[in-house]
Order: sequence, then C-alpha cells, then structure tokens
Amino acid sequence: MIDLRSDTVTKPTEAMRKAAYTAEVGDDVYEEDPTVNRLEERAAELLGKEKALFVTSGTQGNQIAALTHCRPGDEVILEANSHIYVYEVAGFSALANVQSRPIIGNRGAMDPEDVKHAIRSENIHFPTTSLICMENTHNLAGGAILPIENMQAIYKVAKDNNMNVHLDGARLFNASVASGISVKEYAKHADSVQFCLSKGLGAPVGSIIAGTEEFINKARKWRKMLGGGLRQVGIIAGPGLVALEENVDRLIEDHVNAKILADGLANIDGIIVENQVETNIIIVNVKNTGHTPESFVTALKEQGILAGVFGKETVRFVTHYDVSREDIDKTLAVIEGTVPM
Amino acid sequence: MIDLRSDTVTKPTEAMRKAAYTAEVGDDVYEEDPTVNRLEERAAELLGKEKALFVTSGTQGNQIAALTHCRPGDEVILEANSHIYVYEVAGFSALANVQSRPIIGNRGAMDPEDVKHAIRSENIHFPTTSLICMENTHNLAGGAILPIENMQAIYKVAKDNNMNVHLDGARLFNASVASGISVKEYAKHADSVQFCLSKGLGAPVGSIIAGTEEFINKARKWRKMLGGGLRQVGIIAGPGLVALEENVDRLIEDHVNAKILADGLANIDGIIVENQVETNIIIVNVKNTGHTPESFVTALKEQGILAGVFGKETVRFVTHYDVSREDIDKTLAVIEGTVPM
Amino acid sequence: MIDLRSDTVTKPTEAMRKAAYTAEVGDDVYEEDPTVNRLEERAAELLGKEKALFVTSGTQGNQIAALTHCRPGDEVILEANSHIYVYEVAGFSALANVQSRPIIGNRGAMDPEDVKHAIRSENIHFPTTSLICMENTHNLAGGAILPIENMQAIYKVAKDNNMNVHLDGARLFNASVASGISVKEYAKHADSVQFCLSKGLGAPVGSIIAGTEEFINKARKWRKMLGGGLRQVGIIAGPGLVALEENVDRLIEDHVNAKILADGLANIDGIIVENQVETNIIIVNVKNTGHTPESFVTALKEQGILAGVFGKETVRFVTHYDVSREDIDKTLAVIEGTVPM
Amino acid sequence: MIDLRSDTVTKPTEAMRKAAYTAEVGDDVYEEDPTVNRLEERAAELLGKEKALFVTSGTQGNQIAALTHCRPGDEVILEANSHIYVYEVAGFSALANVQSRPIIGNRGAMDPEDVKHAIRSENIHFPTTSLICMENTHNLAGGAILPIENMQAIYKVAKDNNMNVHLDGARLFNASVASGISVKEYAKHADSVQFCLSKGLGAPVGSIIAGTEEFINKARKWRKMLGGGLRQVGIIAGPGLVALEENVDRLIEDHVNAKILADGLANIDGIIVENQVETNIIIVNVKNTGHTPESFVTALKEQGILAGVFGKETVRFVTHYDVSREDIDKTLAVIEGTVPM
Repeated sequence: MIDLRSDTVTKPTEAMRKAAYTAEVGDDVYEEDPTVNRLEERAAELLGKEKALFVTSGTQGNQIAALTHCRPGDEVILEANSHIYVYEVAGFSALANVQSRPIIGNRGAMDPEDVKHAIRSENIHFPTTSLICMENTHNLAGGAILPIENMQAIYKVAKDNNMNVHLDGARLFNASVASGISVKEYAKHADSVQFCLSKGLGAPVGSIIAGTEEFINKARKWRKMLGGGLRQVGIIAGPGLVALEENVDRLIEDHVNAKILADGLANIDGIIVENQVETNIIIVNVKNTGHTPESFVTALKEQGILAGVFGKETVRFVTHYDVSREDIDKTLAVIEGTVPM
Repeated sequence: MIDLRSDTVTKPTEAMRKAAYTAEVGDDVYEEDPTVNRLEERAAELLGKEKALFVTSGTQGNQIAALTHCRPGDEVILEANSHIYVYEVAGFSALANVQSRPIIGNRGAMDPEDVKHAIRSENIHFPTTSLICMENTHNLAGGAILPIENMQAIYKVAKDNNMNVHLDGARLFNASVASGISVKEYAKHADSVQFCLSKGLGAPVGSIIAGTEEFINKARKWRKMLGGGLRQVGIIAGPGLVALEENVDRLIEDHVNAKILADGLANIDGIIVENQVETNIIIVNVKNTGHTPESFVTALKEQGILAGVFGKETVRFVTHYDVSREDIDKTLAVIEGTVPM
Repeated sequence: MIDLRSDTVTKPTEAMRKAAYTAEVGDDVYEEDPTVNRLEERAAELLGKEKALFVTSGTQGNQIAALTHCRPGDEVILEANSHIYVYEVAGFSALANVQSRPIIGNRGAMDPEDVKHAIRSENIHFPTTSLICMENTHNLAGGAILPIENMQAIYKVAKDNNMNVHLDGARLFNASVASGISVKEYAKHADSVQFCLSKGLGAPVGSIIAGTEEFINKARKWRKMLGGGLRQVGIIAGPGLVALEENVDRLIEDHVNAKILADGLANIDGIIVENQVETNIIIVNVKNTGHTPESFVTALKEQGILAGVFGKETVRFVTHYDVSREDIDKTLAVIEGTVPM
Repeated sequence: MIDLRSDTVTKPTEAMRKAAYTAEVGDDVYEEDPTVNRLEERAAELLGKEKALFVTSGTQGNQIAALTHCRPGDEVILEANSHIYVYEVAGFSALANVQSRPIIGNRGAMDPEDVKHAIRSENIHFPTTSLICMENTHNLAGGAILPIENMQAIYKVAKDNNMNVHLDGARLFNASVASGISVKEYAKHADSVQFCLSKGLGAPVGSIIAGTEEFINKARKWRKMLGGGLRQVGIIAGPGLVALEENVDRLIEDHVNAKILADGLANIDGIIVENQVETNIIIVNVKNTGHTPESFVTALKEQGILAGVFGKETVRFVTHYDVSREDIDKTLAVIEGTVPM
C-alpha cells in the first residue's frame, strides 16, 4: 500500500526504534528522565524559547496553550479552518472554557486588520480577547506557509493589545524547510509554539510546546491534569530526538515529491489541483472525473493507493518519508487509469 | 432627555408599578408564587409550548437553553452577529462549555444551506453539533425580522439531523406585531424560545423561556445554579403580566415612529440610514457628517437626545413607549441642526 | 397557615410594596438605576467594604465569588454542611470549575488547624488552594453563629497563605443582632461578603455581594454572564432598602420566638431539640414520637402549621416576621396534640 | 541507588525494550495499530469487559471516566484520600465539572451505608449523584486491598440507585495477586475500570480503561480531546503487552519484599509501621526517631536509599521489580544505622 492519507502514518525508522530500545530513562513526573530532558532542551534551543515540554500530541499541546494563556470566558481569535477550531473536538470551549472567534484567512493567513477589528473593547457584554492562534503550515489550506510578514504583523497587533500569540506549528518544520526561514525566526512571533515530532518528522508519538519558563511551569501542571504526565518517557522521547536530528532536512524530498505529484495530477483530465503546493499536501477536486471523493478514494484503494476524502468534491494526498519517488510515479499511473470512471 | 439608546431603558408604567404593589406572592423556589405561575402559564400559552419559566434576563434564558440542550464539547450553530455570540460574555463557552460556530447571515437570517453544511459528520476529531440558535428580531441586523420561511427551513434542517433549535426572541413580539405572524407561529420552529418582558414590552425586569415540560424541568435546575431561583418573584412577574396584556399591540407605534425617524434621517445631508427599518431599530452611518459616532452622540446628548455608538461609523436609535411622536420630531430637528458639524 | 418552613417565605411588607411602587428607576446595565445605586452604597457602607453589587440570590452571590476569586482547577475549603457545598447544585464545580474541600465543623465553625492542614503545598499533583468559605449564621448547623474569634483565626490562616476568604452571610444580620457584633466587624474577616435581603430581612428578592472595587468590577461581568444584569432593578432594590432600614433590629423578635418555641418543644414528650438555638432556626428530632419527619410534617400541615423535613429523623422550624408570638403558642399547642401519634 | 519512592520508577525490562524495538505499528487515530489493538483486546479479556482503550496515564483514564459517565453539575462519591481526589489536580471539577463528595473510608474502603446516605435525593438544590469511584489497591491507605464484599456492596448501592461505578485500579493487579481474586472478579463490580501498565507492572508508559462498547466509544472521543489520541502507539503498547504477560505473577515478590521490609522496620527503635502491609506499600511514622520525614529521607538518600515524604510524620516505601531482596536487607541496615539520629 502507498499511504498518502496523511504524514501521521509514517512508521518509525530503524534509528528511532533503536533509540527507543536503548533510551536512558527515568520517571518524568519527577523530571528525572534524561532523554526527555535532552529532547526538551534541544527543542527549546531550536525554537529560541526559554523552555520546552513534551506532550503526547499536537492537540494536547494546543489545548494546554489555551488553558495556560486564558481564563474562562475569554475569547480567542483563530483562523476559521484552523486545526484547533475544526479538528480538536471543541476542546478550547470544553476544557479551557474560551469562545473561539474564527476569521476566514487567505491560504490560512488571517488579515492583521481583521484580527485587529476582532479584538474586543472593554464592555460589560464582551469577553476579553486574550489569545490569537496561528497555524503554520496550515493544514486545511493545503500545507500553505504563513508569510513571515503576516506573522510579524499579527504578533504586533497582539502585543499592542496586551495579548498572547500561540503558534500551532504541527508542521512548522515543513514551513521552515520550504521557506528557508528558521523555526526560531518563526517562533519569535509567538509567545508559545507547538510542533509535532510525529507527522513529517516521523517520530511515532509526541509533540513539543515551548515558551517562557513561567509558561512551561504552568503548562506542566495542566499537562498533568490532562493525563500527559508520563513515566519512562525516554522510550518515546528517544525516537523524537532522532526525528529532530535526522528528519528535518529531508522534508525537502517530501515537498519535491508533492510538487511532482501535483504537476502530474494537474495533467490528468478531470483532476483539478486546488491548492498551490508549497509543502507536502495536495488537494484535488475530482468532480469532473465522474467520481465522488468517496468512490475515487475507494477506486484507488483497490489498486494499492490510500488517499483521504477531504471535502464534498475533494481528495487529499500527503507525502512523507514512507512515500518514495517511485510511489509517486505509481500513484500517477494508477490515477490516470482510474479517471475518467 | 429623549432616550433612544435602547428599548431596555423603558420605565415601568403606572399599571406595572401597581401590579408590583399589589402582586399576590409566594416563595417561587417552592413554586408557590401565584403571580409568576400565572405569568408562566400565560407565556406558555402564547407561545404554544408545554411550559414556560421566568428568568431574570434574556442572557440568562439563552444560557440556560445551551446548558439544557447541550453537553460540553458540543458545537452550536448561530449567526455571526447574534446577541448570544457577541454580547453574552462568551457564556456559551464559559458556562455550557460548547463551541460556537458562527455563520454570517443576511439581515440576521442564516442560509439554511450554510447551516446544513456546518453540521458536523461523525468523526473522532469533531464535536457533535447539537443546537442551532436563531434571533428574531435580530438586534445587530437593525431589528430585522427573520422570514418565517427561513425559520421553517432551518428548523427542518435541525430535525433532519436530530438537533434542537433555540429561538432568541428577545424582541419576538416586535417581529410578530410587524409581520402579523403570531409568536406561536414563530415558536413552532424552535424547541425552546426566549423572549424579554423588559425591552419593548416595558416590564422592569425579566424574560421567559419556554419549551417542553421536560426541557423546563431541567432548565429550572440550571436556573437555580445560576442564581435565578427567586423568592417572592410576583413583585416582578406582576409587571411582566401587565407588559404582556397591555404593551404588545402598541409596539406598532414604536415601529411607526422608527419609520418616521428613519425617513427623516434619510433626508438629512450626510446621514445614511444603513438598515431597512422593519421594527424599532435604526442604524445610521455618520461618517459624511464630519462626526465620529462618539462626537455625534455627544453632540446630541448636549441637546437632550441620547443615542448609542454602534460601530466604527454608525449610531443606533431605538424607539419605545417612552418616546413619543413629538420626541421623534424634536430628535429630527436637533439632528438637522447638528450636522454637518 | 403558620409557615415555619423557612424565613425565605416572608411576604413583602406594605412599606416594601410601596417602595416598589414608587422606586425611582433606570437601566442598571448602564449603572443608571438610582435606587439600586443607593442600595449598593448603603450595603457597602454597612459592611465596611469599598463596593457592593446587587445580585438576584444568595446562590448567585456565592457563585460569583468563586468565579471572581478562583481559577479552574483551584481548590476551595468550605464547611462540609455549608449551603454552598450542599444546596447550590454543585455550581462551584459546574460553573467555576473548582474542587470543593469540605471540612467538618463544630456548629458550622471549621477548626482553623483543620483549615491550615487542608491547604495544599506546591506539588505537580495538587490543585492550588485559593479560597476559604465561611457561613454565618450557619444554616445546617441550626442557625449557629460563627464565633468572631473563629473567623479571625481562619482569616489569618488565609492571609498567611495568600488566599482569599468569602463569607456566605445569607443570614449575617441574624448573627449580628444575636451577638451584638456589627456586620462590619464580621465582614472585616473576609475579602468578599454575601448577604440576603430576602430571608429574615424580608425583601421579596435579592442579595448583596461586597468587596474591593476591583473585586466588584470583575464580579459585575460574571453577574452579566450568569444573567444577573437587570434593567429597572429599582423595583426590587427599593424593597431591599426598606429591608435594611426597617427589618434588621426586629430580627431579635424572631430569635426570641425561636427560643420560646424551642423551650416549648423541649418540654414535649418525644421531641428532642437538637441544636443550641442562637438565632431563628430550630431542629428537632422526632424519632421518639413514632413519626417519621414526613408524617410529622404532614400531621402538622393538616392543622395549619408548615414545617420542613430536615434529615432522616429531624424537622426544621424557622421563625420570621410573618410568625407572631401567638403563632408560636398555637404551634406548640398543635404539636402537643400531635405527639405521640 | 535503591529507589523505594514509588513503583512508578520501574525501568523497562529488556523484553519490554525489545517489544518497543520490534513493535508492529500503525496509526492508532485510524485504529490501525495492531499492537495497541492486541493490547486493548487482551486487557478487555482480562477484565471481562466488552472493550478497552489505551490511555497515557492513570490520571487520564480516571478523568475520561468522569467525562464519559457524568454531566456537568453532577456529584461523584469517592474516598476522601483517593488518588482522584487528592492527586489529580482537581481535574474532576476542572475538566468534567463535577463536584466530588469525599467519604472517609476505613483502609480505603468506604462504608456502603455512608455511600448510600451520600446519594442525593431529587431536589432543586441538589446535584445529581451519578458516579461512585473506588480505588483498589488504595494508594494513600498504604496499598490496602478493598475487600471484594465491600466492592460488591457498593456496586449494589450504585445499581439500586441507577448510578455508575468507576474502579481506579491503578494497582489492581497487586490486589489480585495478593488476594487471589482475579481482576475479572474485581472488575465485575464496576462499570468502568482503569489499571496502570506502568507502576508495578513495569511498562514505561500507559494505562487501560475498560467498559462497555458504548462507554469506550465515547471515551475514545474524550481521549482525543485531552490529547491522548496517538499515532504509532505500538511502541509503547508493545512493552505494555510484555508487562501483562510477564510481570503480573511476579508482583508477589514485591509483596514479600514489602513484608520483610515492614517487619524489619517494625523492629527498629523509633520506627512505627503505620499500615497493615498487604501489597507493596509501607508507611512508617518517624517522629520518634528525632527526624522529620524530610531529614529522614535526606539521611537515607546520602546512603543510597530513596524513600518518599508521605505526611507530616510519615515516610513511604514502595517495593517493585527493580528492588531485590538484597536491596531490602541493605535498606534495613542503612535505616538501623540512621536512627535514632
């Protein structure tokens, strides 16, 4: 099977498995696991933040950010198609008791003017706007990269209004590798940052959040409450360290493969590539193929290709290190044979 | 002072004060206050619902609806400029722990297709969409009346998807009087309804929520938790009964006055009436007068007229029974003398 | 009917009804109701606090105190039989998201040492203890008065540990009148205070919370979210002012009546008075009468006396201004004829 | 170092590390990880429940149980010294919005009569009691085993009152091995069960919750919201399977070691063993040694022994598979040399 449903399906590499096998471990609730400590230090350093914390998933990292930055009854500005708003089971409202204020962005990027206008003034009827969330790369916008100027401008709006910014950087390394802008540079424009060790970096489990020491100290307690305080966590932090050491630069290959796949798809009659492919995600409209997204995906599956139903007319492909250049060629061949139905 | 800031400023009439003075009372936590019982029965009857409950404000009624209909982590579809989303201190998220999913409507009316598309499918990442809220008349849309066909269509979408509908009818009687459609007819397209006895109906304090007996029984407990379980509540229910008996039909006068005021304003150079005036709210753009909304409102205040800053370029006037036809004429005269600055 | 179920059943006096009839009113959401402003000023003055806020019930006042003082995940120390813990529908956890830490008191008074031991140290597993609640008089302890020394000692524990104290003084004026200690003196040992205008003071509706200006400013917003932001609230604030002016000193009569009733009950075979009657509440054990509390209460009701089932063997009587000395005598006569069954 | 602070410090065995190294994995958010599927099936089978779910910690499992079983504003009966109430950062109130109703048990076992009396009747002031939590073995009661008859009786109370029971079985296998009663037999008296793969069973990370299929399906979504939906989780589920296969029966060795340690300690002047040692936890009072718990623990640490400060006069020792019989002897020798100070 060539699995193009998501980069979350990446299997741990031999080096990662070895890292799990050999990890020096301790009880991380006592902060005594040397491997996770090393991972957290390395992550903080990469992001240019005072401290970092291992969390079990991107969702957990994002939820902890809201719990730490906000008070119940606050309002949070985020992009209308952001992962937090769409895919996190309404956790911001259910756990952190905050109201989300979605703003429709352009390729995932909110207009700083829109953000500014959305900030509440002081009024007995209004919640306090305390947080802005950005997502880079932006998943539902097809792996779009937030322009650094956009992030700067929004961060300035936040600071001018005494608000915090959280960066959902689940795929921040994809943005960095594609744009040539360091993750540290991106992280400058946020008070807290989350990135995933799984997804494109290929670790089996885990994400990182980073920020000031004060932020992380509070975040650690929220993590404990959510059940993210683990014991011999080196077993998963070890592979995470490998992911950071070995799998960042190679993301460029996924981007190249995505481009090749996109270009190939664009040449197939009936297929419309909907997004400008900047990183590793391709969204195609299949309505002109005579297929529904469901039947399209089923047809591919029967021929050994897994893709994901995305919208009412669209299908998503995501490249990652378990997908080779040959897999891309094979995928294109299969699709050419599949459409029109 | 001619107070056109809101219909919430209406002072109780002599009949209402008398009703407070003479109200037969009892302890409503024991459900023994005959006056509130009468008010609740009358309200249920008017709305065609099994049962009604007195609450201390429209906000309380709306919050209780969410608490009763939803579970934490649910999603609620509502109009992007609805009172609930904009003016209730994010209570839906802070108290009921639900995520709001705002849809931009046309004069307050959401497109049923948009509503349908916003309903979540079953997916591990998605909240359950359990409630749709409508607002009629729609405050921020300038007192716009939701077309009954729109309400029907949205209610059908809800029922097709096993969801509930809550109607924020803070000014439902304005809609009814203006459209000739009974409140009972409007209430048919909702599982729960809230309307205000204060605002245009002029009672000093209080609102009503209505629904099935099961809904109200649960709602009563949530009301207790919020601190809305009162004692000798007949003192305020009495004026509420007067409001229902005496002040419904006369709302038409407020609508006529609003129309006259709007027409007059439209004839003043520099003033643009922004909304189609269907009920008792007029929104005017003052940018061409050389005034900011703030300076415009201040200028009027110095001449005995109170209006409300509405948006960055707009000012709001609301008519009600403490504003006479003469007051309208005087207001127009003052504004003519005030602009251009 | 002689209604001894609770002092919440008191009917408004003629003076209160007149105050409702004549109240000068305005829109309190704009803070323009002169009567409620007067009431809040008077209440703040009586309690020696910077500011006071009208709320619709004692429950609402207590809930707002938790919402204002605490953050989600905090722990609150309170007495195991306190009204907040037993009778407020778990609002502290449902609305303010705080964990209650009940301590069993002696006649409602927690041992300051127990309070001290219950305060959490800093530990990744522990909530932060941020609030202590006291209740004076203590309802379930039979209207017991918290000794001022006990309040002082607990307040000191709180201050030594950077915590706040909230005083649920629903019947604080009963404590004051009975002990001769001013409510201001009691209020000194708390950061926020709530007292009820209904109950013994006899107003139809309403309570007060008081504290620093900063506390009340925040509390006002939480009140709005709970739906306690009202309009022409003078209609109920007026009677509240009368309650404060006319009904405080006369509470002593209720206490005398309670004493007479208790002494009389103690002389009836089979009746055991369980509490030391300090104010207006009497709790009697009826197991030796051959009655269950339910059958006892039913038997009295048939003869025109209302009392309340309290516990598995106990019945509660509460005196108030709608119960005269003659009513007490009649009550005793009826009970003498009722037991043994 | 001989680490007797907790059985959470156990390091993964060679077999567990190998299991991590070789685990067959997939994306568990898609429910495609064969190793975690095997672990969940095995756990469900062991517990005699329809379905089981991997969670990242015991705390997460307990929190999910409350989120799944309860509604906000419910009340949960639990033991006053239970892990949930004392050590989970008030998560029941902060996340699930439920009020805890602690009952003081005898060696961790609540009296079923106390439980029965604590259940709320229907009353407008009362929360709904919807859940009872038991803990077996009981951590703060010194690893005490809940008698099966006690569990049966409490479960009957729950069923008679339409309530659910959750069993916090973080150390349920210790109870089972010590009592000879199968975990399946224990699990019969609960609607949901949580047990830890870490702690005595020695897996590096993870716990299991089990219940009906309906319960687990809902629980899976709450897990996602808390951030416990992981990807290639076989890496940690593999060691978990080893823990279940290899480390259950050997818990008896920890219990034997605990007994030897306790007997030895009891013979040392000044040391009082406070608990009846049934499993792997020993609590000793050190006040007669001239030491505070802190100085006692520090003195041991300097000689290579780690123990935990437990209470104001007490120290806790926990045996586990990284502590051998020789370590016990050495520990006793060190302590004999350490006290009296």
